[in-house]
Amino acid sequence: MMRIDILTLFPEMFAGPFSTSILKRAQDKGLIAVNLIDIRDFSTNKHRTVDDTPYGGGAGMVMSPEAIFKAVENVLREHPGATTRIVLMCPQGRPFNQATALNLAGEENLIFICGHYEGVDERVREELVTDEISIGDYILTGGELPAMVVIDAVTRLIPGVLGDHASVQEESFNNSLLEYPQYTRPREFRGQAVPDILLSGHHEEIRKWRRRQSLIRTLERRPEMLTQLEMTEEDKAILKKLKGDLQGLDLG
Amino acid sequence: MMRIDILTLFPEMFAGPFSTSILKRAQDKGLIAVNLIDIRDFSTNKHRTVDDTPYGGGAGMVMSPEAIFKAVENVLREHPGATTRIVLMCPQGRPFNQATALNLAGEENLIFICGHYEGVDERVREELVTDEISIGDYILTGGELPAMVVIDAVTRLIPGVLGDHASVQEESFNNSLLEYPQYTRPREFRGQAVPDILLSGHHEEIRKWRRRQSLIRTLERRPEMLTQLEMTEEDKAILKKLKGDLQGLDLG
Repeated sequence: MMRIDILTLFPEMFAGPFSTSILKRAQDKGLIAVNLIDIRDFSTNKHRTVDDTPYGGGAGMVMSPEAIFKAVENVLREHPGATTRIVLMCPQGRPFNQATALNLAGEENLIFICGHYEGVDERVREELVTDEISIGDYILTGGELPAMVVIDAVTRLIPGVLGDHASVQEESFNNSLLEYPQYTRPREFRGQAVPDILLSGHHEEIRKWRRRQSLIRTLERRPEMLTQLEMTEEDKAILKKLKGDLQGLDLG
Repeated sequence: MMRIDILTLFPEMFAGPFSTSILKRAQDKGLIAVNLIDIRDFSTNKHRTVDDTPYGGGAGMVMSPEAIFKAVENVLREHPGATTRIVLMCPQGRPFNQATALNLAGEENLIFICGHYEGVDERVREELVTDEISIGDYILTGGELPAMVVIDAVTRLIPGVLGDHASVQEESFNNSLLEYPQYTRPREFRGQAVPDILLSGHHEEIRKWRRRQSLIRTLERRPEMLTQLEMTEEDKAILKKLKGDLQGLDLG
C-alpha cells in the first residue's frame, strides 16, 4: 500500500476529489492511504501563521520554513526507515510527465508539500525536498490542485487500481502519440456519420487506420512529440507517404 | 461577471476546491458564477448511461455525443446571444499556458466539458467545442481536475479577484523566467542563513541579484524558456558574463 501525506493550508480542498472516482476506489481497496496535514497545526506561534514577509522586500508573503520542516519530520517519525520522496509542488519544478508518474508509482511513501503565496522559503527546497514538480507553465493559486493532479496520475498506475490494464497501455503519451478519434453510438448523429472503416469488422484495417489517425493528429497538433517516438516500419511508411504527397504539391 | 458552466460526470468533485481559497472569494465577490451540470441529467435512456463501446472495438468506453450536445445546448439557451467558449478538457488538446489563461480571462461565458473513459465521441470535437485544452503530457482519470486547474488559473487573472495586483505581474511565466529564491524569517534556520544581500537594504542591488538568480535558475532548469524571453540589456550582460566565465574554463 502506498502512503500519501499531503501538507497543505487548505485540507478541505481535497474532500471532493478524494471521495470520488478512482481516488476513492483506490483508498477503498486499500491500495493507497491518504493523510491530510494542516501545516498550520505545526505553526510556532499562537496565531497559527505560517507565512511572513520576504527578506529583501517585494509583494506578497513567503511560507516560513519552520512549520513545514516540523510537519515533514512528524510524518517521517511515524514511518521510521521507510524511504520517502518529499515532493514540493511549485512553478519552478521539473515539468511533470508520464515518466515521472510511473517513477513515483513505484514508491511506498510520498509526501506532497503544497506551496502558496509568493513561494516557499528557499531552505525548504535546499534542505528538505527530494523533488520539485510543476504540472505546467501556468500560474495557479497554490499547490493543492497540482498535488491532486499528480496523485491522480500516479494512483491510476498502481496495479489493481484500474480494472482494465489494457487501457493503461494504449493511452496517449504512453507511446508518445495522441490518441486516434473515437466514436460510439449513434452511428449517425446530426448528419455526421461514423467512418465506414470502423464498421467494417476488419480488425487489421481498423488498427492501421487508427495508427494513421494518431500519427496525423500528432503531426498536426504536437509535431515536437514525433521526435520522441520510437517509430515502427509502419509508422515510417505512413509518414513517408504523407511527405511524398506534400512534395508532389506545387507550393510555390 | 464571468459565468462558468462545467459539464461533468462527477459534480461532487468540485465541492472542495470551489468552496475554498480564491475560487470561493471570487464567487463571494460576484466576479464569477459557477454552475455544475451533471451530464447524466441529459442522458437519453432510463439507466442514465452516457457512454458506450467504441465503434471498431478496443478497450474502455467512449462518451456518447447526445447527452453532451443536449447539456451544452441547454446552457446556450439560458444565455442567448452571449458569446461562449466551449472548452473540452482532453489529452489531445492544445497545451495550456499563461497566454491561454489570459485569453480565457477576457471571456464572459465559458463552458467546460470534462472528458472521461477512453475519450469523447469525435463529433463532439468536430461540431461542438471551440477549444480543446490539455494541462500537460500526463494521463489523468478525467477532465475534472484539469478543468479546476484552468478555472483557477483564469479566475485569478480577473481584475478584483486578487487583492494585490503587483503580485500577478511579478510571477513566474508572466515574464518567461522562473522566480528567484525567496526567504523569510528566521534569518538563520538550522544553520542555513538568508543571503546577506537580502538584508542589505540596497533595493537596486537586491533587484539585480534577484534578476540574476531568476536567469540562472531558468538556465539551469528550463533552458528552453530563455529562447522565449525578451531580454533586457541587463539580462544580456548577465548571460554574457556567465558565458565568458564558462569559456574561460578548460573543459577538455
